[in-house]
Parts: sequence; structure tokens; C-alpha cells
Amino acid sequence: MTSQDTLSMPWWCGHGSASRRGPHLEEQMKRSTSLPPPGGKLAVLLPGMGAVASTFIAGVLLARRGLGLPVGSLTQMGGLRVGGERVRLSQYLPLARMDQLVFGGWDIFPENVHEAALHSKVLEPAQLEPIREELEAIRPMKGVFHPQYVKRLHGTHVKTGATKADLVEQVRQDIRAFLRDKDCTRAVAVWCGSTETYVAADQVHASRRAFEAGLLENAPSITNSQLYAWACIQEGVAFANGSPNLAVDFPAAAELARHHEVVLAGKDFKTGQTLMKTVIAPALKARMLGVRGWFSTNILGNRDGEVLDDPESFRSKEITKRGVLEEILQTGDHPELYGDLFHKVRIEYYPPRGDAKEGWDNIDLFGWLGYPMQMKIDFLCRDSILAAPIVLDLALLMDLAQRAGRIGTQDWLGFYFKSPMTDAGHSAEHDLFPQERRLKNTLRAMMGDEARGPSSTERDD
Amino acid sequence: MTSQDTLSMPWWCGHGSASRRGPHLEEQMKRSTSLPPPGGKLAVLLPGMGAVASTFIAGVLLARRGLGLPVGSLTQMGGLRVGGERVRLSQYLPLARMDQLVFGGWDIFPENVHEAALHSKVLEPAQLEPIREELEAIRPMKGVFHPQYVKRLHGTHVKTGATKADLVEQVRQDIRAFLRDKDCTRAVAVWCGSTETYVAADQVHASRRAFEAGLLENAPSITNSQLYAWACIQEGVAFANGSPNLAVDFPAAAELARHHEVVLAGKDFKTGQTLMKTVIAPALKARMLGVRGWFSTNILGNRDGEVLDDPESFRSKEITKRGVLEEILQTGDHPELYGDLFHKVRIEYYPPRGDAKEGWDNIDLFGWLGYPMQMKIDFLCRDSILAAPIVLDLALLMDLAQRAGRIGTQDWLGFYFKSPMTDAGHSAEHDLFPQERRLKNTLRAMMGDEARGPSSTERDD
Amino acid sequence: MTSQDTLSMPWWCGHGSASRRGPHLEEQMKRSTSLPPPGGKLAVLLPGMGAVASTFIAGVLLARRGLGLPVGSLTQMGGLRVGGERVRLSQYLPLARMDQLVFGGWDIFPENVHEAALHSKVLEPAQLEPIREELEAIRPMKGVFHPQYVKRLHGTHVKTGATKADLVEQVRQDIRAFLRDKDCTRAVAVWCGSTETYVAADQVHASRRAFEAGLLENAPSITNSQLYAWACIQEGVAFANGSPNLAVDFPAAAELARHHEVVLAGKDFKTGQTLMKTVIAPALKARMLGVRGWFSTNILGNRDGEVLDDPESFRSKEITKRGVLEEILQTGDHPELYGDLFHKVRIEYYPPRGDAKEGWDNIDLFGWLGYPMQMKIDFLCRDSILAAPIVLDLALLMDLAQRAGRIGTQDWLGFYFKSPMTDAGHSAEHDLFPQERRLKNTLRAMMGDEARGPSSTERDD
Amino acid sequence: MTSQDTLSMPWWCGHGSASRRGPHLEEQMKRSTSLPPPGGKLAVLLPGMGAVASTFIAGVLLARRGLGLPVGSLTQMGGLRVGGERVRLSQYLPLARMDQLVFGGWDIFPENVHEAALHSKVLEPAQLEPIREELEAIRPMKGVFHPQYVKRLHGTHVKTGATKADLVEQVRQDIRAFLRDKDCTRAVAVWCGSTETYVAADQVHASRRAFEAGLLENAPSITNSQLYAWACIQEGVAFANGSPNLAVDFPAAAELARHHEVVLAGKDFKTGQTLMKTVIAPALKARMLGVRGWFSTNILGNRDGEVLDDPESFRSKEITKRGVLEEILQTGDHPELYGDLFHKVRIEYYPPRGDAKEGWDNIDLFGWLGYPMQMKIDFLCRDSILAAPIVLDLALLMDLAQRAGRIGTQDWLGFYFKSPMTDAGHSAEHDLFPQERRLKNTLRAMMGDEARGPSSTERDD
Ligand SMILES: NC(=O)c1ccc[n+]([C@@H]2O[C@H](COP(=O)([O-])OP(=O)(O)OC[C@H]3O[C@@H](n4cnc5c(N)ncnc54)[C@H](O)[C@@H]3O)[C@@H](O)[C@H]2O)c1
Ligand SMILES: NC(=O)c1ccc[n+]([C@@H]2O[C@H](COP(=O)([O-])OP(=O)(O)OC[C@H]3O[C@@H](n4cnc5c(N)ncnc54)[C@H](O)[C@@H]3O)[C@@H](O)[C@H]2O)c1
Ligand SMILES: NC(=O)c1ccc[n+]([C@@H]2O[C@H](COP(=O)([O-])OP(=O)(O)OC[C@H]3O[C@@H](n4cnc5c(N)ncnc54)[C@H](O)[C@@H]3O)[C@@H](O)[C@H]2O)c1
Ligand SMILES: NC(=O)c1ccc[n+]([C@@H]2O[C@H](COP(=O)([O-])OP(=O)(O)OC[C@H]3O[C@@H](n4cnc5c(N)ncnc54)[C@H](O)[C@@H]3O)[C@@H](O)[C@H]2O)c1
Ligand code: NA
Ligand code: NA
Repeated sequence: MTSQDTLSMPWWCGHGSASRRGPHLEEQMKRSTSLPPPGGKLAVLLPGMGAVASTFIAGVLLARRGLGLPVGSLTQMGGLRVGGERVRLSQYLPLARMDQLVFGGWDIFPENVHEAALHSKVLEPAQLEPIREELEAIRPMKGVFHPQYVKRLHGTHVKTGATKADLVEQVRQDIRAFLRDKDCTRAVAVWCGSTETYVAADQVHASRRAFEAGLLENAPSITNSQLYAWACIQEGVAFANGSPNLAVDFPAAAELARHHEVVLAGKDFKTGQTLMKTVIAPALKARMLGVRGWFSTNILGNRDGEVLDDPESFRSKEITKRGVLEEILQTGDHPELYGDLFHKVRIEYYPPRGDAKEGWDNIDLFGWLGYPMQMKIDFLCRDSILAAPIVLDLALLMDLAQRAGRIGTQDWLGFYFKSPMTDAGHSAEHDLFPQERRLKNTLRAMMGDEARGPSSTERDD
Repeated sequence: MTSQDTLSMPWWCGHGSASRRGPHLEEQMKRSTSLPPPGGKLAVLLPGMGAVASTFIAGVLLARRGLGLPVGSLTQMGGLRVGGERVRLSQYLPLARMDQLVFGGWDIFPENVHEAALHSKVLEPAQLEPIREELEAIRPMKGVFHPQYVKRLHGTHVKTGATKADLVEQVRQDIRAFLRDKDCTRAVAVWCGSTETYVAADQVHASRRAFEAGLLENAPSITNSQLYAWACIQEGVAFANGSPNLAVDFPAAAELARHHEVVLAGKDFKTGQTLMKTVIAPALKARMLGVRGWFSTNILGNRDGEVLDDPESFRSKEITKRGVLEEILQTGDHPELYGDLFHKVRIEYYPPRGDAKEGWDNIDLFGWLGYPMQMKIDFLCRDSILAAPIVLDLALLMDLAQRAGRIGTQDWLGFYFKSPMTDAGHSAEHDLFPQERRLKNTLRAMMGDEARGPSSTERDD
Repeated sequence: MTSQDTLSMPWWCGHGSASRRGPHLEEQMKRSTSLPPPGGKLAVLLPGMGAVASTFIAGVLLARRGLGLPVGSLTQMGGLRVGGERVRLSQYLPLARMDQLVFGGWDIFPENVHEAALHSKVLEPAQLEPIREELEAIRPMKGVFHPQYVKRLHGTHVKTGATKADLVEQVRQDIRAFLRDKDCTRAVAVWCGSTETYVAADQVHASRRAFEAGLLENAPSITNSQLYAWACIQEGVAFANGSPNLAVDFPAAAELARHHEVVLAGKDFKTGQTLMKTVIAPALKARMLGVRGWFSTNILGNRDGEVLDDPESFRSKEITKRGVLEEILQTGDHPELYGDLFHKVRIEYYPPRGDAKEGWDNIDLFGWLGYPMQMKIDFLCRDSILAAPIVLDLALLMDLAQRAGRIGTQDWLGFYFKSPMTDAGHSAEHDLFPQERRLKNTLRAMMGDEARGPSSTERDD
Repeated sequence: MTSQDTLSMPWWCGHGSASRRGPHLEEQMKRSTSLPPPGGKLAVLLPGMGAVASTFIAGVLLARRGLGLPVGSLTQMGGLRVGGERVRLSQYLPLARMDQLVFGGWDIFPENVHEAALHSKVLEPAQLEPIREELEAIRPMKGVFHPQYVKRLHGTHVKTGATKADLVEQVRQDIRAFLRDKDCTRAVAVWCGSTETYVAADQVHASRRAFEAGLLENAPSITNSQLYAWACIQEGVAFANGSPNLAVDFPAAAELARHHEVVLAGKDFKTGQTLMKTVIAPALKARMLGVRGWFSTNILGNRDGEVLDDPESFRSKEITKRGVLEEILQTGDHPELYGDLFHKVRIEYYPPRGDAKEGWDNIDLFGWLGYPMQMKIDFLCRDSILAAPIVLDLALLMDLAQRAGRIGTQDWLGFYFKSPMTDAGHSAEHDLFPQERRLKNTLRAMMGDEARGPSSTERDD
């Protein structure tokens, strides 16, 4: 970790003057002042406090005490090159520190975070002992829950309200109360709730006005996650979406975010199998190797797996998991290599495995004169262990972007998502390395430094 | 393929004026004229005409007749973006066309290329029928062979000479005779011969003068591949090295190449397992995931496998295969993530498999709070099928670079090599994607176009 | 192969006199004469002439000419021990010889067997050339086909008839005509047709009388395969069932078989993944290792895969594939080891793979003090290559059993089936090795030899 | 074996009279008395108290207290059928109970068993807490150690003596002292020490007399394990050998065992990869599928792996691991299927994995007409977890055999060994299931019950 690395001067002295920023960045910012220091406490609000959320919280609490390393977190472990020097992100950027975070959230079950952590069986119980009291003290607020969007769960700890608009209002009050009670200066939200059934955006999602009418009329295409998101945006709370749910991925949410000057990001954390896919597919393409088929299956036994066992929830996930290859391989440009690609993705609920998901991929590729080859990738990963550091990075980087005056969809955070949200009209980048470059260049730009230049052949760190 | 992409003007009209070239490129070129069109026939000379060489030659002959696609070859299938447009490399660059190539080479066995192709069991015999006569007509010249550098082979088709200097002279005469007899305007060489036992560079390799003395004195540290290389450079023939042998990777060769204004590249084709390693390791690092161990084994049954069954030859290969991870993961910068990395590579001769090599990797990684995960990659590849398109690309790109007036080690061709050669003092880049960017930006620079700029977030094609 | 191994004396001289047979066998035989020699031609009738059937036929034709080995066939390659001596089955038993077989069958598409073999892409086209004419001459008779039982196929080469009884009658005429035209003394049938949707046996299947009424009334629970089976039994033709369809697995068929003194066997060829399961599960049990979960997936792209892509057809297959573990592990006897076993089986239609099915298994096991372990088995098999020798063995062994006077379900043939049929009230044996012992002891008993005795510790070959 | 021994009364009441026993059994028994009940304490002496030994001891102590299940142990968890009834072995056989065992042994390091268990990192430290004191109280006696037989270890806790004979004498005194001090009525020994370098048996091993001369002359072909074995046999202590060392596998040891009426068994525990091999190879053979190649590699990082990293120790292991396939597949009987089999076994020391060994197998098989298929088996096992229950079973079954009056090599215990020891002139059975049958029938015979008869088709439990 990096708590010991104290820069002798605060980051904002002498960095980041507006004059050094490029015009591209300028356009996306509402005001061109330099970044304020991250004083005070930052509330990290998590709608959905299950495996990922509890692993994230417990890990931060342990890391604060020096009892664990936040491995997988760029903001805590990573660095980049600036003007020939390699600096740690935590020193370079005016990020909130881990000890400035205060955790809260909502769930449809009343378990506290210690109970949630035990039930999700990700971390060893013994490891939770030193932080047990802190975890027990974090209790979810009552959730907003219409069960038709998550068929396998039967929530008991839920708000009631005549209309969806009422429920939004209640969430807004929760946020205000939390900030007040916990003495926080600001908040960010990261959706860690269950995957909802696939519900396409429709007219109700087309504009702020239509959506607000829909809230009053209990429009069925408005799902739970959208209610949280709507409340957050109205309260000026940046919102990142870790699931494949629409949540904030529709025009009305973008409009509302512009109005309230709030940043958004999503969707669906990119962790195990898809992470690897967005690296191996570009490699095959870099070498002009053909691909005839790609079969991916996953076995997992956590509650997320149980939810995804419902075909309608799986459909949401399948969409975010399947889009990846076509975009990377640019099927259209290379019909002879990728034109016939058959891509199939499966998620199998398999209780013996718990959170220790296994993703097995078979790739049927071909080379010189069409000769067939195969690759198998068996990733014995741990779902929440891979997702937790992403939650941390998103909380800190969203807060940074918000403080930097950025507004709306932060597509440079696509690095963290299976199905990166973009502004209307832009196509998503799925390849991990351009995503990484984009993220790092955006951070450099925020700090007024130059992007890694055209003749740079070094890696982007 | 590309019939629709017709450039209205040949590439060299109006492009590539010196004024548009950056200074970096300028330094590497002896003269700043524009690139001459690739007229006449290009001899492709292959020291070592076994599995890779015969698969390469047969594939080109088949592709010429429309009987097969040169999959895996960037020069034939790939493209890049220039000023917002995507162009095919074969149209963008003044490369020799496949039908301008004439094949020749040396081997220590007298088999013609049809026989070599049958014996190596890579391509289906039936597929060779249409080009059988062409293949039979290509007969290796007698090889230079001191058996102590390849213990498992007992060559019968070999030159004799009192000194190594004599043998170099014989190879030079072979080259001149070939160019004359086959009516070629120029030649490139790609070493496709066996892996030699590990022999470290010593004083003999330190300068041109020392090496020439060594040739006369039969210095034992001068191996067979170095004799071919020395002859090629003296004849102005660009030399690329597909094996882990030193061949041209020592100061005297660099000196000689500068003197004769010849381009060099190497070493050891990057094909199956190592190719994947140079993609997966950067992905783990991009996400700050730790790695405790990486075990790689390979089973293969071709003649290359038989040669590598000799521990001394394996040692050469082990060195090129092992260097990769440390450089990519920057162990020093991230001791908590990569400091304890245990990396082991094995090659196992296993006759049942023939050329259909299987590379199996186990990666022990760790994430959030140190929790362990594993990844297994089983690559059922085909050795020569992956190597053949690299031979084609290297022949064409080396010829281009030579015609463009470049001199010495072409480190931008590192994309194709397990152990990329660099000029003295430069460290090698192993990560596939920076290598790809470097290669493409070098090609753009050769053509007088701008590199992909700093704010570019698109993939580099 | 063994065609050249001619015993100097026919098998039946001096062997197998009734006096040496045990009482157990006696009960199952209608007459206690010695086995007649297999004179004349044996018709092998295949309802369903797709991948398995064409691979079987082509292989026998090639083997007859010495152009291929019937690997995987016990009757052709295997042996057993009799009284201390190891003998080849083909010498020991009075089996029909491969050159006495005449092939015929039915399909719902008019392709001849050469076309079927090409379409199914199992054998290399070049390999079929020497037997092309023989294969072309084998043309399927029109099939019996009610499409609701195989939703993905749209047969064009089908019989018409007012009632299912009419269709049975037409099949009976086909059989009689075939035997007459091809000059065969007798026939056996092996169902190689598609998997039907799952249709449970009901009242119609309870007795011969009810079934015959059902045939006249077009009872919907009577499927296509049952019509062929009914016709065969009435014609005295032994019937083995290679698919999970009921076909002959219901009381009325058993009753009819007893009446006509016909032998039956089934069901669902045990080939790749399930074959391995019936070996690995017993090993874990032999060593008292626990199993918490077993996940099996299959990717395949042949027509069988396409049919099984229909959930209703898959259901039939799932039932035969899933029953295996519970029986072998005797969950009830070992609740602490196998009580919580979660077993999931998937079949995924994946066209890139064709007939080259891949079965991937993950087994979650545990040992001493409950410590978890995992095993992964990736079987890159070939569906029809594994099934073809089973068709050959079943044809010859059913004919033998029929000639030996056996009647009804031949449970000793369970060795070949995923879901071994037994007589009512008997439980099935799934473990491969007891199945093998049972098969071999039954053959010994048929020949009047002693079973391998209790003190035998040698393997059963 | 002993099928004729049908006894209506419990075995120790008057059965086992010589007249009813077959001659084969008779030879192996020294006296025809009935089996005494297992009163008193049984010393379990372990030369080598590392990972396997400490896991075994800790597991028994935990199981005694109901804190863990002895999974993998036939004597504790398994059963068999006797006369139609299924009985648990622990009830059927007069075995010592777990709470009658007293643990001791020797090591060349002074760590107590708690320390050894912690260092070997097999069991969770928290799990050892309840039995910590018991474990700490078990301290190894000083080892006999000539370091040339285990090159990677540098023992510090070793006996000194002028001759090997002196060292044997010291071990004998240790045994007598242990029995006296711990108040045990008898002892068995199970070698759990390191694998020694390969040392072939020579003249010194040919007879008791020659061996005793060798002990006095410090003959270099007498290794450490042989010294323990010699001492044990002289003290009447049954000796089972878990490693590939010769230990008791030579004529002089057999002679001594006959003289002292002691039982022996070995060698090399059959646990992960080899266990699976002895199940899958018989399955392929049962189905007459051909095998062209079998490649097995293992990665492991425990001390055993470190020892085996020495080529001379690996050679011992390679021999026991490689013999398996040829015997099972009966290469000679099936040259067309197994004649060209290429079998390669590798063990790779790979510290990141600790005791969690991974065995990866690739099998190149072929079927109908020679078409190739592949199987991969990846066994993520735990070495000591698989070995510990074998130590328990061997201790109890050797004690039983000893009490039953059996003498010399107990080949029916081959079920537990990679390289089953047999009496001179007998070939070993490697197939797991005949081994299981043999073991169970021997136990039935010891108890005077009938072996599972010839017509039995049920599994052998
Ligand atoms: N690697 C990963 O773990 C990973 C990767 C990508 C996406 N995700 C997504 O992250 C999300 C969380 O995953 P998880 O493993 O923690 O799942 P989980 O089931 O353990 O936790 C989800 C929690 O959300 C709660 N919830 C459901 N609906 C809610 C609502 N309307 N309001 C409040 N709470 C609600 C559930 O009760 C549960 O506690 C899922 O959507 C999952 O698909 C996870
Ligand atoms: N994927 C790949 O195939 C791959 C990848 C990286 C490197 N390589 C390297 O490429 C080279 C060729 O591989 P291959 O599979 O074709 O091997 P191969 O054994 O089939 O062919 C090598 C040929 O070189 C010949 N040879 C050896 N010494 C010679 C000499 N002194 N002069 C002339 N000929 C000589 C041999 O007789 C043989 O015909 C090897 O060094 C191999 O390590 C191959
Ligand atoms: N390893 C194996 O290949 C394997 C293992 C177990 C079971 N099976 C079963 O064997 C059967 C054949 O497999 P395949 O790979 O040859 O499939 P296939 O699809 O290639 O062949 C089946 C044929 O049956 C025909 N058919 C369907 N309904 C028919 C009807 N009513 N009458 C006549 N013909 C009909 C189809 O047209 C097709 O030609 C399937 O049921 C399959 O499930 C195969
Ligand atoms: N699955 C398995 O674990 C398995 C399977 C087959 C065989 N084995 C064999 O079992 C044996 C024990 O395996 P382990 O994993 O416990 O190894 P380990 O290295 O943890 O333990 C072996 C112990 O033997 C001690 N030792 C070495 N020489 C000795 C001597 N002369 N006298 C007394 N002690 C001595 C060492 O100090 C060490 O403590 C090895 O030979 C191994 O090959 C183990
Ligand atoms: Na999750
Ligand atoms: Na061990």
C-alpha cells in the first residue's frame, strides 16, 4: 500500500493549471478551476450490499489497518508515467484516501455487512474478526424492490410507497440523512445490487419529462435500479453501475445528469472471463489469426449465480457479455477471418462452487491456409475478489471526476466495464489496452499533463 | 480480399516527402529519398528448410493460385488507419508481391521442399498436389554444419572447408549464383534452421576484426548460423533470425551491418505460448493483479522438438522464453505483486503430437487481500502454421526497410520475436500491443504519415 | 483385425455342449440346443442413417478391404480369458463375420450413405473414395416421421399412412422385402435415428393390447422410434436402441418380444463423457473420496447437436446422462460423502465443432477432513467414431444372442449404454467394469465355459 | 484366493482351521490360530514425519474428537457386501480403533508434529488449535541419515554410528523403548520419509547373510530406509513403504520377514495422477480404444517436490510412476492398439503451489479407423490429503494381517500402491478395480466369508 508515500507538497500546488489543459478536456468541464483538495469524508453508497459490497468494505477496513493489501486497485497499487517519471496514482491524483471513506447503502435483506460477508463466503471468517464491530455497525437502509425485476429473490427489508416517485423521494431522504448523520461532505454511489431481468429502454426513458411522468404512473419499464439512480442524480451523487441493468444507461438519465452536473459510469464490472476475452481477442486480431467459434461457460454458486439462473436475468448479462467480440474483431472489416464467428456464452448456477467462479472458454481459431487450432482457458477466479477493487477505484475516480467538474457519462472509465457506456453516437471501446491508455491519458489531462505521445512505444504505465 | 480498396494514386506519388518525416526516423536512414517501387524478383533465402520453411513456401505458392489464404500474415491480411481511413497494408506499402518471390536456401539434408513438407507432416499431402512440381524444384544448397551445435542431427548434405572463413566464402558464392541464375534483383534471408546449443557471445564476437580472425582460426564460439549471417551481410542481404541462436545478435554483426548498410532482425519467432504470455501478463498488470507463479510446459513431436530435447539446445530456447515476464511485469516497480514470481518453462519432446504442439500454462495469481486464483491456458496450436506467416511478413518488411535505406537492427519488428533484438543500450519491449503500435507507427513514418496521436483512444489498426 | 485369424476348426466343434452350461443361462433360453453356425447373410437395419450409421457402414466396408482397423470394437479387436488361455472374441464366439453383413435402413432424408457420410464430416472424403460406389448403393427406405417428436428436423422422405398401425405395417413390408431382395437369412436392427422429445410411457405402453389400440388411434405418446421397434419385433428382428428414446423400453414391447422370442437392448450409446464418468465415479468411491459437485458440459455441432438444441429433445438425453452418478455412488449408503452431490449436465449446440464433440467436466471432490480438490476432464472426442464400433458389436452380439435362443432385454449389453435397460424390477449397473465382467461372463456362459471365478484377481480379459 | 472358505461362525471361533484353507493361504500364515481381539495400544511408527505423517496424525486426532471426518479411509468410511448384506469395514473386521493408536517416529529435523504440520501448510493452522498440545508432544526420534541418498536435505537431527549395523541397532532400541514407554502391545511402521536416489538392488540385497555383512561394511547400496526396515522386521514390526525407495523390496528383506513372521507391503502411495491412470487406462482398454501417447506432468511445491527436483531422486519416482501403463494395457497382446505408446512422466518443483499438487495429463487416443482423439485431465489435488487416509488404512490392515498370522509381502494391499510389491515371480496388478476386489476378497477370506462369486455382477462393495 501507499499510505507511507507522502508527497512533500500537496498535489495541487503547481500542477494542473488551466493553461496546460487541452481543449478536448475543456469541453467536458463546466468550470476551468483547478481541482479542490479532497477534504472531509466521502460517503460511498452501495445499493445492494451482498458479496461484492461486503468484500469491498471489509477489504478497505482491513487495508486501512495494514491487515491486507488492496490488490487489483489501480488507485492504490498502480502508477503511470508523467514526463518520463513513474508516479503512483495515489500520489499523483488528489484522490480521497481510504480512511476518508464512510460506507452505507441499501439492501432488501436486513443483514449487516458482517453477516453479509459471512453468508457470501468470500473472505475467511477469521480474517473478519479484527473489523467485526465496524462491519456489524454498517446496516443497510431498506431497499426499493419490485420483485418482478429479480425473480429469484424475495426481499423482506423493503420500502413501501404508492408510486415509484414516492420511492425515489424516500431514497433522496435517505441520502440526505446519511450525509448529515455521518458528517460527510459528499457522496458517490456504486450499484452492487442484483442483475435485473432484461427490460429494454422505451419511450418512458426518452426524456426527463417522460421518465418523471412514468415514475408517477408506475411505468413497468422503470426498474428498481433506475429509482436509486434517479434519486442519486437529483442529490448530486455520482453513480456507477456494476451490473448489466440499465440503471443510468438511457437518455433521460443523461439529461438529468447534465442538469445536475453529475458524473455517471457503467455498466457491468469487467472481471474474469470477459476481462480475458478483451485481451485475447485483440491479440488474435493483431496477428490476423481467424476465429470460427468462441464458447464460454461459467459455473458459480453465489447469490448472483442464483439470480442469473433465471433466464430473464441471464438475458441482461448475456447481452453485456456477448457484445464484446464483434466490436473487437471488427467482423465487418475481416469477413474472411471473423465473418462466421459463432459466439456462445453460458452462466450455470452450480452451488458447490460458491463465489469461486470458474470460467471455461474454448476458442476455435485458424491460421495459415485455414488450419484449425484450439485454445482453452480455464479461469478459476473469485468473483467478488475481482470486483471489490473496481468498486474502490470507481468510488475514488468518480469522486475525482465530479470534483474536477466533469459531467455525464465518463467513458474513460470503460476500462472497468463489460459494456462500457458512451455518450450517444459514440461506439464503445472494449479492448483492455486502449481502455487503459484512455484512462491514464484522461487522468494526465485532468492534471494538466501531456498524454503519452505518438512516438511513444513504451507501455502505458 | 482487397480488390475494392483501390488507391487512386500509387503510394509514392506525393506521399512521404522528407519534410513530413520526423527527426527520429531521419536518423535511422542513410538517404532521404522516397522509396523506389519494388521492381524485379526478390530472392527469399532460407538457411534451414524444414517444417517452417516448407510450410511457408507451400503456403505462398498455394495463395498465389488462390488455393489458400495467407492467414496470420499482417502484410497480406492486415490494415492500419492513416488519417482516419483504414487501408490495407498491401496497398499502403510498396511491398514486394507474393508472385515476385523466388525461394531458395540451404539444408544439411538433401530433401527437396516437397519431401520436407511431407516429412514434417504439417500440411495435408493432398493439398500439396497442385504445387508438387514447384516444390520439388526447390532443392536446398549444401549446408554449413559443425555438428557440435546441434547434437541431435547428423547432416549428410554439407559443405566442407578448411576454415569457417572458407565456409562463409562458399555461402557468399551460393548467394551470388542464386541471384544470377534465378534472375533476382535482390535477396532477404530468414533463418529457419534448428536451434543451436547455447553458446554465449565472447571476445570473438566483440568486433568485426575479431570475428574475422575467429573465422580463420575456427573459433569454437562461432556457430553455424553466424556463418550464414556473416555471408548474407557481406552480400547486402537483410537477415532475420527465427531461432534463439545468436546468429546476428552480437556487436561484430552490428558493425558489419552498418558497414554494408544492411538491416537485421531477431530473434526467435513469437508464436504460441509466448505470444499469449505477452498479452495475458500485461492484462494482469493493467489490473494490478499479483502473480506468484507461472508454469509453462510444451509437448511437441517435430524435428524441432527432437533438437530441443538436447539440454544444451533447450537452454538457448529457455533463455528467450523466460525473459518475457520479468520485463513485462516490471518486477522491480511492484515487489508486492511480482516480487516473488516463480517462472518455469519446459519443452518436452513427445513424438505422438508431431507439429501440433500443445502449450499448457498454469498461472497462480492473486487479487484483493491476496486471495489466490488460477488460470490455465491450453493452446492446441500448430507450430509451423503460426510461424509461416511470420516468415512471409519478415521477408517483405525487411526488404521494404532495406529499400527504405534503413540500417542495422530493426527493433520495430520485435512484434514477431520472443526475444526482440535492440540496439545496444535499449531495453526490449515484450508486450504485444506496444509492439504492434510501434510497428504500425514505423510503417506510417516510412510512408511520411503521422503516428497515431496522443489523444487517440482507438485501437491501432 | 482378425479376418486372417482363421481357426483350423469351427468354433462349435467340441465347445459349448449343453451339459457344460450352468442353470442360470438355461433359464433364459427357450431351447437348450447348441448354437448353430452363423451361415448366410445378416441384414443390419438402421432406422436413422446419419453420422453414426454412415460412419459405421463405411468403417466396416473399409475394414473388410483391409483399409482400416475397426478400433473400439470388442468383437473384432478384443479377447477374453477362458480356462487360463486368452482367446480373441472373434475366434471364440460363432459371430457373423463382417463380410456377411448387408446394410440397409430408413431415413427421413433421401441421401444415400455416401452423401450422408460426406455431410456428417466425420471421415475424410478421400478415405471414402475406394468404397464410394458401395456406399452410394445404400439408399434409405422412406422414414416414419411425425415431426412433433423431433422439432428441429423437417423430413422430406417419409411414408404416409392414415394410422400409426398402417405405418408399422409398411415398415414390416420393408423388412420382408429387404431380406428377400438382398438374400439375407435374418436381420438385426440398431436404432441410429435422432433423439426424440421426452415422452413418458403411459397407459398405452402398459400392454401389447393397449399399444395396438393406440397404434390404431394414433395415440400421441407413441413416437416414431416405437413404430420401427414394433415392426421389427413382429418380424423377429432383434432391436437395439442407441438413443435415449423409449423405443423398446416399455412393458408392451417386452411382452411383444417375449411372444415373438426376440432380443432387445438399450438405451443410448455410452460413448465419451458418460463413459468416463462411469469409470471415474467408481474410482472415487473405491477410495471413499467425497463428491460435492459434478458439472458436465458438451459442445458439439453435428445434426445430433442441432436436434438436442431443442429443450424437449435435450430432456430425453439429460435423463439418460444424469442417472449415472447416483446409482454408482450409492448416495444413500454414503450420505456424508455423496449426500449433497450437485450434478448438472449440459449439451450445447456449437456448429464450429461439427462431430468433434468436446466434453468438459469439472468435479468438486473432497478428501481427508473434508479438504476440497478439483478434477477437470476435457475429452476432445469424436462422437460417431466412438459410436460406430458399438453399432457393430451390438449387431453381432444381438444376432448371437438371438441365435442362442435368448429372449427379451439383454441387460448384459449394458456395457454399451448410458441408461442400461433391465428387466422390470432389476436395477441397472452403470459402472463400466462390472458391466464388462458381466458381458464377458455371459459370453463364456453362452459357450458353456465357466465364469471367471471368485478367486480370480486378474483383470477380466 | 479363498472362496472355498465359507464359515458360518465368526472367523476367530474355530475357523481358519488348516483343513478348510486352501494351500495358497496356508503358506502365507505361520500358525492357524484364530484372530485375537485387538486389545491394548498399537504404536504407529513413522520414519519420516513431514507433510504426510503430520497430516495423518492430526487428522486422526481430530477425527477422534469428532472434529473431522477421515474421508478417503476405507477402514473408517467404507464397507463391503457379505452374504447379501452391506457391512462397514470397521464393524466387520477386528481392527484397532483410532483411539487405540499411539504415534511416534523418526525424522532428521527436530520439529515436533505441530511444527511439521504448520510448515507443510496442508491443514489450516486454526484447525490444529484444539489438538495443538497433543501434536507438540509428538517429537521425532533422531533419524538415520546418510545424505547421499537424499541430496536436497541437510538433516540436523541424526544418529551417529560407526557402521550401518550400529544404526540398525539404535533404531531397534528406539522401538523397544517406545513400546515400553508408551505402554503399547505392538507396533506397525509406515515409511513416510523422503524419496531416496535410485539405487538398484545388488548382491548385498540378495540374502539375509549378505545384507548383514553389508551393514557391517557400510555397503553403499544400503540406503537409509533399508536400515529402518531391517530394524523393524527384526523387532516384529510390520512395515509398509509409502515411497518408491527399495526399503523392503529385495530378497534379503523377504527372507528376514519370513524368519521373523512379519508382514510387508509397498511401495509408493498411489494417490493423484497415478490413481486416475489406473482407472482410465483400463477403461480405454475395456473399449478397445488405442493409445498413442500419454504425457503426465506434475507441479508441486512441498518438500517432497524439492527432494524430487534432484534428478536421482526423481528417477526412483519415475520408475514407479511409469510402470503402470504397460502392464494395464498389455501392450504385447494388442500391438495394433498400444504397441507404439509413448509414455512420459514429469515432476516439476514449483514452490507457489505448496502441497496443492496439480497433475496434468494429456492422452492421445484413437478409435474407429484410427481417428485421433485427446483427453486432458487436470487434477488439482492435495498430496498429503490423499496420502493420509492411506497411512491409516495401512497401519490398521497391516496390524490385522500380522495378527491374523500372515507373513511376508501382502500383495492384496497393492490397491494402495503405485508399484505394488509381489512375491518373487508374480506380476503386479495395477488396475484399481481388480485391486479393490482382491483386497475385499482377502478381507472376506480372513473373516471366513465367501468371496464375491463368479456370477456376481454387482460392484464389489
Ligand atoms: N465479479 C463480480 O462479482 C461481478 C462482475 C460483474 C458484475 N457483477 C454484478 O455485481 C452485482 C453484485 O454482485 P454480488 O455477487 O455482490 O451479488 P449478491 O447477490 O451477493 O449481492 C447483490 C445484493 O443486491 C441486493 N439487492 C437486489 N435487489 C436490490 C434492490 N432493489 N435494492 C437493494 N438491494 C438489492 C441483494 O439482496 C443482494 O444482497 C450483480 O449485479 C452482479 O451481476 C459482479
Ligand atoms: N512456431 C515455430 O515453429 C517456431 C517458433 C519459434 C522458433 N522456431 C524456430 O524455427 C526454427 C525452425 O523450426 P522448424 O520447426 O522448421 O524445425 P525443423 O527441424 O523442421 O527445420 C530446421 C531445419 O534446419 C536444418 N538445419 C539445421 N542446421 C542447419 C544448418 N547448419 N544449415 C542448414 N540447415 C540446417 C535442419 O536439417 C532442418 O531441416 C527452429 O530453430 C525453431 O526453434 C520455430
Ligand atoms: N457418440 C454418439 O454419436 C452417440 C452417443 C449416444 C447416442 N447417440 C445417438 O445416436 C443417434 C444418432 O446420432 P447421429 O450423430 O448419427 O445423428 P444424426 O443426426 O447424424 O443422424 C440421425 C439420423 O436420423 C434420422 N432420423 C430422424 N428421425 C428419423 C425417423 N423417424 N426415421 C428415420 N430416420 C430418422 C435423421 O434424419 C438423421 O439422418 C442419436 O439419437 C444420438 O443421440 C449418439
Ligand atoms: N500423495 C503423497 O503425498 C505421496 C504419494 C506417494 C508417495 N509419497 C511419498 O511419501 C513420502 C513423504 O511425503 P511427504 O510429502 O510427507 O514429504 P515431506 O518431505 O514433507 O516429509 C518427508 C520427511 O522425511 C524426512 N526424512 C528424510 N529422510 C529421512 C530419514 N532418513 N529418516 C527420517 N526422516 C527422514 C524429512 O526430513 C521429511 O520431514 C515421500 O517419499 C513421498 O514421495 C507421497
Ligand atoms: Na459477484
Ligand atoms: Na507428499
